[in-house]
Amino acid sequence: MTLALAVDLGGTKVEAAIVDDDGVIVPGTRHRAPTGEAAAGDAGVARESIETVVRRALAAAPAPVTAAGIGAAGPVDAGAGTTSPINLPALRDFPIAEVVARASGLDRVRLGLDGSCIALAERWRGAARACDDAIVLVVSTGVGGGVIVDGRLLGGASGNAGHLGQLVIEPFDGDPAPATVERIASGPHTVRWARERGWAGSTGEELAAAYAAGDPLATEAVRRSAAAVGVGIANAATLLDLELAVVGGGFAQVAQDYVDLVQASARDAAQNAYAARIRVERAQLGGEAPLIGAAALVLLD
Amino acid sequence: MTLALAVDLGGTKVEAAIVDDDGVIVPGTRHRAPTGEAAAGDAGVARESIETVVRRALAAAPAPVTAAGIGAAGPVDAGAGTTSPINLPALRDFPIAEVVARASGLDRVRLGLDGSCIALAERWRGAARACDDAIVLVVSTGVGGGVIVDGRLLGGASGNAGHLGQLVIEPFDGDPAPATVERIASGPHTVRWARERGWAGSTGEELAAAYAAGDPLATEAVRRSAAAVGVGIANAATLLDLELAVVGGGFAQVAQDYVDLVQASARDAAQNAYAARIRVERAQLGGEAPLIGAAALVLLD
Repeated sequence: MTLALAVDLGGTKVEAAIVDDDGVIVPGTRHRAPTGEAAAGDAGVARESIETVVRRALAAAPAPVTAAGIGAAGPVDAGAGTTSPINLPALRDFPIAEVVARASGLDRVRLGLDGSCIALAERWRGAARACDDAIVLVVSTGVGGGVIVDGRLLGGASGNAGHLGQLVIEPFDGDPAPATVERIASGPHTVRWARERGWAGSTGEELAAAYAAGDPLATEAVRRSAAAVGVGIANAATLLDLELAVVGGGFAQVAQDYVDLVQASARDAAQNAYAARIRVERAQLGGEAPLIGAAALVLLD
Repeated sequence: MTLALAVDLGGTKVEAAIVDDDGVIVPGTRHRAPTGEAAAGDAGVARESIETVVRRALAAAPAPVTAAGIGAAGPVDAGAGTTSPINLPALRDFPIAEVVARASGLDRVRLGLDGSCIALAERWRGAARACDDAIVLVVSTGVGGGVIVDGRLLGGASGNAGHLGQLVIEPFDGDPAPATVERIASGPHTVRWARERGWAGSTGEELAAAYAAGDPLATEAVRRSAAAVGVGIANAATLLDLELAVVGGGFAQVAQDYVDLVQASARDAAQNAYAARIRVERAQLGGEAPLIGAAALVLLD
């Protein structure tokens, strides 16, 4: 059994765990520490948090670990091993690969975008297992993702392929903040849209409850979010000729039929028959996906 | 020297030629026959036209030919070797690979989308020579393209990746004909847009002349086309993390600075720095690209 160290650097926390070559997190090896808010102002704090979780995970490993895979909030520079997470402004060109290499003592360290890792995880053990051409999305405080083509992760020139949330879906007239999939569909944007129209709640959970109760504004807001995600998927399917879109993330739980609404929008928005055939399915791995996918960067290569 | 038979099936004509392994069309081997208008009503006529140009090209070959590559207006089914060109309604699931195999006597026949072939050609001998991550576009009566990632053609599940013209770039409200890159940017749509606003001309050539003369409506129309192509490129760069977009096709000649306008729009529309870095350059191969790229399907594999 080969074991990998997996690290997931997000906007509010960093996690590390040991993952085996079946794609299973070894029990008792998963640790987390904060990177956000207070920590975000200081790259030194983030560095310390990463070192802490890496050492704790390794200390709990049942056998020697051969390599480390890192998923990070981006944009990343996969070749340089650095990341500049949008939500962690203190971390510009942060040398996360080097930090993990030093803390772990491992020579073989590979960095990928967090969305790429989630895609690898769903391809390895989740909803995209049987599919060579898929996009995997997370709809949450942001909208991100990763792309599998011909059975392999599509990294792109610098490792940033898959940022579906930043697709512009309005005729562009120079607006510095044009309508993107994320600016329409993310949890916070959807809640704000409903509030601006008089909805009284203020969280995604409240929106979910209002949707379940049939509140008309909540219904419209959720449908609007799903419609925008569907347009993004239709565009990805058009450009990449994909078979499957896997949708996960906290805000995708806002409605029991969210994935069905996304499927309907993708089918309607697709202009070519091959793209309209794309299937939309629910993600299967949840919160373990970023770590499993980070390990996949080195275990499946 | 290895020689390939190259076939290009378009909406109005089919061409065939012999291409050598330097990517050069052997002089005197290029032949064409109509597929459009009268021929479009009858799959038998298209079949006859294909057989004619294949036999003429092979008869002119200076040495034995080993394989055939076909580029076709799509959508295609690359695996099945069939195509259903939008502009040739009589050809549904037309078995072009089989038709070419029979007419040529060649066992090794490979089919790709015409946009894929143009991308392969520009990657082999044109503007994308030095680039592993690029999209190649044609702006003409339609807007099509092909994608190179990690130095290889991105085919997708059925061979249709690269259809940038069908990206939806407006918030989707169920409109059966939403704004796509092609519906805004293509030559005919741009001319129509200007005419609806009072411009007196009726062709792309007249629009080019009016633009060169500083006509305000022509200027606005051309800029609008370039802006939409730029949004499409920004979206492709965002999703695929590309370094280069190559823009060709007849309508890209409508203005001397068309490619510059597209570059400016792509940079402005890109929401992530890695995507805003994409370079936009003019295609280098022109009308030979579809045949050179069709040959690349079998000569470079």
